[in-house]
Amino acid sequence: MRIKMIIAYDGTDFNGYQIQPDARTVQQELEVALSKLHKGANIKVSASGRTDARVHAKGQVIHFDTPLSIPMAKWPKALNAVLAKDVRVLEASEAPESFHARFDACGKEYRYVIDRSRVQDVFLRNYAYHYPYPLNMEAMKMASRHLLGTHDFTAFCSTKTEVEDRVRTIESIEFTEEGDKLTMSIRGSGFLYNMVRIIMGTLLNAGTGMTQPGEISDMIFSRDRTKTGKTAPGHGLYLYKVFYDN
Amino acid sequence: MRIKMIIAYDGTDFNGYQIQPDARTVQQELEVALSKLHKGANIKVSASGRTDARVHAKGQVIHFDTPLSIPMAKWPKALNAVLAKDVRVLEASEAPESFHARFDACGKEYRYVIDRSRVQDVFLRNYAYHYPYPLNMEAMKMASRHLLGTHDFTAFCSTKTEVEDRVRTIESIEFTEEGDKLTMSIRGSGFLYNMVRIIMGTLLNAGTGMTQPGEISDMIFSRDRTKTGKTAPGHGLYLYKVFYDN
Repeated sequence: MRIKMIIAYDGTDFNGYQIQPDARTVQQELEVALSKLHKGANIKVSASGRTDARVHAKGQVIHFDTPLSIPMAKWPKALNAVLAKDVRVLEASEAPESFHARFDACGKEYRYVIDRSRVQDVFLRNYAYHYPYPLNMEAMKMASRHLLGTHDFTAFCSTKTEVEDRVRTIESIEFTEEGDKLTMSIRGSGFLYNMVRIIMGTLLNAGTGMTQPGEISDMIFSRDRTKTGKTAPGHGLYLYKVFYDN
Repeated sequence: MRIKMIIAYDGTDFNGYQIQPDARTVQQELEVALSKLHKGANIKVSASGRTDARVHAKGQVIHFDTPLSIPMAKWPKALNAVLAKDVRVLEASEAPESFHARFDACGKEYRYVIDRSRVQDVFLRNYAYHYPYPLNMEAMKMASRHLLGTHDFTAFCSTKTEVEDRVRTIESIEFTEEGDKLTMSIRGSGFLYNMVRIIMGTLLNAGTGMTQPGEISDMIFSRDRTKTGKTAPGHGLYLYKVFYDN
């Protein structure tokens, strides 16, 4: 039986999602926990995509196959009992044998949180990017509008990006403020390596006036990573939701 | 010159406020940092009161004396530069030589945060008490009203409490809900050892129906710690504000 799960994790103590030697990763944590439930058998977990070191997830989606006949409603509790406290299974459901967490994903929402307080909020130090500089929110919103739609986002992804096709569609970018906490919610068809963090860094430049909103279109057109802003740090980023057609 | 500071700390990695051998404490962190600014000289720090292991502070108040002539506006930055990231100085001001962070405090506000989500919120695991059981909020509020005013709170403090006079005044107890996050704000003249945590544990019993709101007055009258609820865990508690007359 194929099982689909929605999971959350605090990325602080993980070296990212994907398994690698000699580093604690979310995938390894999941596979070790599943192995315990399967009498030591290896269970391969597939996720909707990787997340980098210190990046968090509130709605990562994974799938795996199991011969066990645990009632579906008991799966979250069973797996949470053997998982470390910084990874939690929120929901489990049976999926068709053809379901794939990565290939079937038709969209994603990420959130990026900025702590604008003068002195860094101790409780947000691992959960938001401390950026105590004045920001012109209107300029950031104007700049963000130029990113909407379907574009080649080569200028907005890491130069290490391996995929050839860098055309992606951004459906929405929204900002919400709550005290000194500024959150960008970005939704799109899919995101390239470091894309959300580079967009955030570039929009912060628009907020400080270093970049004019109208320059965003030229940046996209340039397909040149050196024209865009810094990659904002991983610990402000959250994989918030993964969308599927069904 | 005597300096008063408002500080915040994440209690997760501290064994409480007060210095003790072979354990990381907030006071030690502050005194080591101040020593660095004072060419190795010992600077004794006094706080409004202790906090226990894993208890947080958003508005702890401390004072110390210094011969340095750093401009007051630069003190937070100077000290934050040598402090660990989980303690931050929020404000500094010059205080009269007679000011004492503990003896001059005329009231305090604590907050206690409860995570009511079915599956523990990974981001609150060190910052809220996970309590996924149904709660009758009206019963909790009714019970809390019996605690208001001036009472002998012997039944609501640790049996290890050393002070003789256990009469304290609770001015207000308020509950706010935000999604699955329930916050109790409690303000009073002063609080005995574990008092807020025992009040929280007792009000949770009122919420589940284990205790009837009307029983609270009998509990107070009994002066018997065995009549009241469990001490709620430290990691849900925040010292929020300390009040002074001036």
